Amino acid sequence: MKRVDGRLPSQLRRIVIQKNYLKHAEGSCLISFGETKVVCSASVEEGVPPFLKGKGRGWVTAEYGMLPRSCTSRINREKAGGSGRTQEIQRLIGRSLRAVVDMKKLGERTIKIDCDVIQGDGGTRTASITGGYIALALAVAKIRKAGLIEKSPLTAQVAAVSVGMKEGRAILDLNYAEDSTAEVDMNIVMLGSGKFVEVQGTAEGQAFSEKDMVAMMALARKGIRELLMVQRRVAGIK
Amino acid sequence: MKRVDGRLPSQLRRIVIQKNYLKHAEGSCLISFGETKVVCSASVEEGVPPFLKGKGRGWVTAEYGMLPRSCTSRINREKAGGSGRTQEIQRLIGRSLRAVVDMKKLGERTIKIDCDVIQGDGGTRTASITGGYIALALAVAKIRKAGLIEKSPLTAQVAAVSVGMKEGRAILDLNYAEDSTAEVDMNIVMLGSGKFVEVQGTAEGQAFSEKDMVAMMALARKGIRELLMVQRRVAGIK
Amino acid sequence: MKRVDGRLPSQLRRIVIQKNYLKHAEGSCLISFGETKVVCSASVEEGVPPFLKGKGRGWVTAEYGMLPRSCTSRINREKAGGSGRTQEIQRLIGRSLRAVVDMKKLGERTIKIDCDVIQGDGGTRTASITGGYIALALAVAKIRKAGLIEKSPLTAQVAAVSVGMKEGRAILDLNYAEDSTAEVDMNIVMLGSGKFVEVQGTAEGQAFSEKDMVAMMALARKGIRELLMVQRRVAGIK
Amino acid sequence: MKRVDGRLPSQLRRIVIQKNYLKHAEGSCLISFGETKVVCSASVEEGVPPFLKGKGRGWVTAEYGMLPRSCTSRINREKAGGSGRTQEIQRLIGRSLRAVVDMKKLGERTIKIDCDVIQGDGGTRTASITGGYIALALAVAKIRKAGLIEKSPLTAQVAAVSVGMKEGRAILDLNYAEDSTAEVDMNIVMLGSGKFVEVQGTAEGQAFSEKDMVAMMALARKGIRELLMVQRRVAGIK
Amino acid sequence: MKRVDGRLPSQLRRIVIQKNYLKHAEGSCLISFGETKVVCSASVEEGVPPFLKGKGRGWVTAEYGMLPRSCTSRINREKAGGSGRTQEIQRLIGRSLRAVVDMKKLGERTIKIDCDVIQGDGGTRTASITGGYIALALAVAKIRKAGLIEKSPLTAQVAAVSVGMKEGRAILDLNYAEDSTAEVDMNIVMLGSGKFVEVQGTAEGQAFSEKDMVAMMALARKGIRELLMVQRRVAGIK
Amino acid sequence: MKRVDGRLPSQLRRIVIQKNYLKHAEGSCLISFGETKVVCSASVEEGVPPFLKGKGRGWVTAEYGMLPRSCTSRINREKAGGSGRTQEIQRLIGRSLRAVVDMKKLGERTIKIDCDVIQGDGGTRTASITGGYIALALAVAKIRKAGLIEKSPLTAQVAAVSVGMKEGRAILDLNYAEDSTAEVDMNIVMLGSGKFVEVQGTAEGQAFSEKDMVAMMALARKGIRELLMVQRRVAGIK
Repeated sequence: MKRVDGRLPSQLRRIVIQKNYLKHAEGSCLISFGETKVVCSASVEEGVPPFLKGKGRGWVTAEYGMLPRSCTSRINREKAGGSGRTQEIQRLIGRSLRAVVDMKKLGERTIKIDCDVIQGDGGTRTASITGGYIALALAVAKIRKAGLIEKSPLTAQVAAVSVGMKEGRAILDLNYAEDSTAEVDMNIVMLGSGKFVEVQGTAEGQAFSEKDMVAMMALARKGIRELLMVQRRVAGIK
Repeated sequence: MKRVDGRLPSQLRRIVIQKNYLKHAEGSCLISFGETKVVCSASVEEGVPPFLKGKGRGWVTAEYGMLPRSCTSRINREKAGGSGRTQEIQRLIGRSLRAVVDMKKLGERTIKIDCDVIQGDGGTRTASITGGYIALALAVAKIRKAGLIEKSPLTAQVAAVSVGMKEGRAILDLNYAEDSTAEVDMNIVMLGSGKFVEVQGTAEGQAFSEKDMVAMMALARKGIRELLMVQRRVAGIK
Repeated sequence: MKRVDGRLPSQLRRIVIQKNYLKHAEGSCLISFGETKVVCSASVEEGVPPFLKGKGRGWVTAEYGMLPRSCTSRINREKAGGSGRTQEIQRLIGRSLRAVVDMKKLGERTIKIDCDVIQGDGGTRTASITGGYIALALAVAKIRKAGLIEKSPLTAQVAAVSVGMKEGRAILDLNYAEDSTAEVDMNIVMLGSGKFVEVQGTAEGQAFSEKDMVAMMALARKGIRELLMVQRRVAGIK
Repeated sequence: MKRVDGRLPSQLRRIVIQKNYLKHAEGSCLISFGETKVVCSASVEEGVPPFLKGKGRGWVTAEYGMLPRSCTSRINREKAGGSGRTQEIQRLIGRSLRAVVDMKKLGERTIKIDCDVIQGDGGTRTASITGGYIALALAVAKIRKAGLIEKSPLTAQVAAVSVGMKEGRAILDLNYAEDSTAEVDMNIVMLGSGKFVEVQGTAEGQAFSEKDMVAMMALARKGIRELLMVQRRVAGIK
Repeated sequence: MKRVDGRLPSQLRRIVIQKNYLKHAEGSCLISFGETKVVCSASVEEGVPPFLKGKGRGWVTAEYGMLPRSCTSRINREKAGGSGRTQEIQRLIGRSLRAVVDMKKLGERTIKIDCDVIQGDGGTRTASITGGYIALALAVAKIRKAGLIEKSPLTAQVAAVSVGMKEGRAILDLNYAEDSTAEVDMNIVMLGSGKFVEVQGTAEGQAFSEKDMVAMMALARKGIRELLMVQRRVAGIK
Repeated sequence: MKRVDGRLPSQLRRIVIQKNYLKHAEGSCLISFGETKVVCSASVEEGVPPFLKGKGRGWVTAEYGMLPRSCTSRINREKAGGSGRTQEIQRLIGRSLRAVVDMKKLGERTIKIDCDVIQGDGGTRTASITGGYIALALAVAKIRKAGLIEKSPLTAQVAAVSVGMKEGRAILDLNYAEDSTAEVDMNIVMLGSGKFVEVQGTAEGQAFSEKDMVAMMALARKGIRELLMVQRRVAGIK
C-alpha cells in the first residue's frame, strides 16, 4: 500500500516544535505534525473551580479552537463552549494532561491549556495533546523557578498519536486525506511508561476485529515513543 | 474480590427490556440494567438533514437526556444541545446505531433515537445503545410493514457494555458505585459478528497496560454476547 | 353527547398513582390520568434563592418537561427555561403547590418539584399538580421523619383538573382529542376546603358566557373532590 | 374600605387613549390607566408564519416589553423572547386579540401588536389588551382604506380589566400598591357582547370562594363596559 | 442646495426637551430632534461593577434600545446586549457621559443611563447623548439634594450632533432621509469648553478630504453650541 | 519626549508582512506591527447575504478574534458574534475594506476576511485592516486568475494606523503601553489617494482641541503612506 504522501505505514509526519512561541503565556509552543499546525499555550491562574475550593489541590483544563480558515473551506466561529466535536476534543486533552499532574503538588492553582489550530490537516487532537504537554511543562518550570511551587507536579511525560485501518492495513498518524477515507480511526494517548491513558477507536463504515486492534496499538506505541523523544530533545525537557 | 452488589466479576446486572413502552413512538422500549432505567424511542421522519439532501440516503441520529431527579442529587435541566458529556454520549449512540443501518435501503428519511434516563446507576450510555437498537428495530419493522421500505436496512445487531479495572481486576457492567471508584472505565460497542464499532477506554487516576486491556475486552465480549441474546429473546427480534 | 372514549360528561379518566417511583428522590410518583403519564419528583435542598435569604422562610418551585416522544409527533428538546407554554405551566404548578405550604415551618430550604411527561394525552398540567402534591407530601414526610423539621408545613391538600365546553356542553377532564376541539378550555386548582387557588379559562374560537362558567366550575369541583380522595387513599396521605 | 388613591371599589382609574401616537406604525396609541402608560402599535406584514402558509388565513400576534425604568427600581433589559412573566403576558394579549379577528378575511398577512410599557403602575396587561385593540382597529382601517382587504376582519370589540379581593372585598382596576397586597388577582378579557375570552384568577396567599369569584366578575363586567365605551368614543371606532 | 425639510445646511431641527418625563427615575427627559424622540432616564444604584470595587470611585454606563415600531418597518426586539450597532451606540453614549463626571466625587455608586427610541428619524445617538446628559444632571441634582453626595461630580456640559457631506456640501443634524443618502456621516461629541470627546466620521461610498472634514467640524461646533444653550435654558441646568 | 521603545513620535514600529501564510485560504498573510501579530485570511464564497440576493453585487465582510493567550492575561473565548469591542472592530474592518471594492465587478460572491490576533501589543485593528487588504488583494488575484471575474474589483489601496496624544504631544502607531496611558486615541483609515474612509477619535480622560486633531491627522497621513509602500513592496501588489 502506498500512502498519499509517500510515507511508510509506520512512519510519522515531520514533527516540529517551536517552543516559547507566545510572548505573554507562561508556557507555549507552535507544534506541527506535517501541515497540521497548532498553537498551544499554558496559562497559570491562582485559584481553582468551585468544586475544588479549599481542598489544597490544583486543576488542569483545556480548550480547543480552530481558526475559521484553518480548514479547506471556512468554518464559522464557534459559540463559547463549542460544538459537540470541540467539547469531546477539549475534554480529551484535559483528561490526558491531568493524568500526568500531581494536583496536590500543584496547589490551589489552575493551568489552562489552549490549543488553537492555525492550519488543520488531520490529527489536530493528537498534536494538541503532544504540544499541550510542552506548554504545560514550560509553565510548570516557570512557576517553579519563580518559587510558587517547590517540587514539580509532573509525574510523567505524555503524548498522543492517531492510527487507523486503511484498505485493511494499519497506518500511523493519518493526515486529512487518509483520515476521511480510513475504515477505522483510533486515537491513543500514552505515558512515558508505555501505559495507556486513553484508547478511542471508532469504526467508520466497517467494524474492526481484535486482530486489527492489536496491529493498530503496536503502531501507536511505536509512534508515541518517537514523539516522546522529540518532546525531550527539541523542547529541552527531561 | 467481592463486588458491592454480590455479583461475580464477569456477571451482568439483571437486564429487562419492556418493548413498545410508549404509545406514540414508531418504536420504543424501557430498558433496565439493574437500577439504571432508560426510555428509548425511535421517531421516523420523512426527509434528511441538508448535507444529505438529494442523495437517496437516510440518516440515524440520537439524543440523550437525564430527568432532573434520575441521579442521587438533582441535576439542572440542560440547554438544548447539552453539555460536553451529553454531546459525547449522544454522538456515541448515533455512531453505534448508524453502524448497523444501510442508509441506501432506508431512503431519504431520518430516524431519531431518544434515550432518556429515568433513573441512573451507571452504564446509562451502554443501556441506551442496547435499548436504542430495540427501538430502532421496532420502528424499522413498523415502516416496513407499512410498505414505506421494501427490505430491512438493518445489517447487523448491536449492543454495548462497560468494563473496568477495579483493584487491579477486570469487572463487567459497572454500577455507579463501581464506576466512580474504578481505575479504568471502558465502553465497548460490538456487533453480532463479534467485531467492534467503538472502543473507548479512559484511565481514571491510573494508566492501564495492554494486558489490562486484553482482560477487559474479553469480559466485554462475553457480556455483549449475553445482551445480544436478551435482545433477540425478550424483544422478539431475529 | 357521546365522548370519544365513552365517558360521561362528568366522568374522570382512570386515575393511577404509583408512589415512590424513583429511587433517589425524596418524594416521587408516576401519575396517570388515562393515557397521560407524568413522573413527579420532589427534591429537597438546603438553602433558598437569593431574594429569600436570611428570612427564615423556605421555597417551593416547579419545573415541567416533556420527553421528545411523549407526543404524537416528536417535539424538540427545549432550551433550559423552556418555551412560553412550558414557563406558563411550571409557574402554575409552582404557585399551586406553594399555596399549601407554610414557608415559615419549612425553614430555609427549597423543594423542587419536577414534572416530566412520559406520555401526553391532554391534561398534563393538571396531572402534574395532582401528582406534584403527592411527591411534595412524601418528601415532607421524609424530612420530618429525619428530624429536619418538627411540624408539617403542609396546610392543605391540593389537586387540579381541566374542564371545557364542547358542542355547548360542559365536560370534565379532557383528553387530547377533546382538548384540541373544545370551544373553551379551563384549568381549575382547588384545595381540600373547596376554595380555589387558580381558575384559568380560555376561549378557543368561541367566547363563553357566565352560565357556561358556572357549569364548568361545578364539574371541576366534583372532579377535584374525587382526585383528592384518590390522593388520600392510593398514596396513603391523611 | 378606602382605596389608596381614594377611588370607590367599583371605580376605574382615569383612562386616556392618545391615538396615532407613532408616525411609522399602521396603527398605534398611547394608553393610560392612571399612571400606567403603554405604547401600543400594530404592524402589518405580508405573509404568515410557516405553520399557516398556503391556507389563505392571516395571523395576529403580540409582544410585550417594559422600558428599563418603567418601574420603581430599574429592571434589566430582557433577552428576546423574554422571561416567563413576559411570555405569559404576550400570549394572553395575542389570544385576546385573535378572538376578535376573522383570519380568513384578513388574508395571508400578519399583524404584530407591540405593547411597550413606558411607565408601570399595575394593570399593564389589561391596558395592553385594551390599547392593543385600538392599534389593531386603526391598522385594519388603514389597510382596508388602502384596498388590501375588502371587508373588516374584526368581528367584535375587546377590552380587559383586573379585579381583586382586598381585605375581603372585591375591587376594580388595581394599581401597583393594591396589586402587590391583594389576596386575589384576576384578569378578565371580555367582548362587546359580554361574553368572556379569558378569565385568569390567582390566589395570592389566600384561596377564594365561588362567592368571591361572582363578586369580582360582576365588577369586571362593569369596568370593561366602561372601557369599551372609552374605546368607541375617544378613539372614534364604531 | 435645498434640504428635504427646507432647512438651511447649518440649521438644527426643532429641539424639544421635556424634563422629568418618568415618574420613577431619578432623572429623565423626553428629547426630540425633529421627529426623532428618545426617552432618556438615569437610575442611581449603590455599588459599582466588580472591576471598580473598593476604589472609592463611581461609574456611569449607558444602554440604548429602540421600540420595535420606532422605525419605518418593524424591527425585531433585540437580545440583551444587543446587536453590533446597538453596542457601538451604547458604548459611545457611556464614554461621552463619563467624560463629564468626576468619579471620585460620585463615590461608589453607579448611574445607568437608558436611552430608548420611541420614534426614529436619524440622529438617535446624538439625541441620546444630549438628552442623556439632562437625565444625568437631574439625577445628580436629586442625590445631591438628598445629601448622598456633597459636591456635584459634573465637570462640564456635553452634547452631540451629526454632520455629513451631501452632494459635496456639509450639512448639520441629518434626518433619516439625508442620513441614508449622505456621502459621509460624522458624529461629534463636544464639551461646553469647545473641546472634543469623540469624533467619528465614516465614508459611505465616497472617501472624504481633510477640507471636507474641516467644514463638517465647523458646522458641528455651531450646532452643539446651540444644543448646549437649549440644555441650559429648557432644562434649567446651569 | 521619549517613547517607551525608543521610537520617534512620528515613527512606525517594524512592519512585517508574510504573505500566503495559510495553505487553504484564497488569500492570507501574517502581519506584524512590532509585537502585534495578526493572521489575516480571505475566503471567497459563491452567493451573498439575503439582503443582496439577485442584485448582481458582491459583499465583503470581516470577523475579528483574539487567541485566548494573545494578551498579558488570558481572556475567555468569545461567544459567536462577540463582545461590543469585537463587534466594533469587525464592523470597522469590514467598512474599510468595502470602501475599496467595486461590488458590481465582484459579482454575487462574498469575501470573508478573518483577522485573528495571535499576539497583541496595541494597534490590532489597524494591523487587521492593513493586513486584511493584503489577504483581500491576494484572493482577488486568485479568483481573477481562475477566470471567475474579468476585471479586478479593487478600486484603491487602503491601510490604517493609530495616532494619539500623550503628555500633550502627538505620537504615531501606539503600542499597548502607550495606548493604555494616552490622553487621546485615534484610528485613521486612508486610501492611496490620501482621502479618508474612517476617522475615529476618542478622548481618554482628557478632551482634545481642533489643533490636537490637526497634529494627529498629519502624523497618521505620514504613517499610512509608509504602510501603503510596505503593502506594495513586500506583498508584491501593484
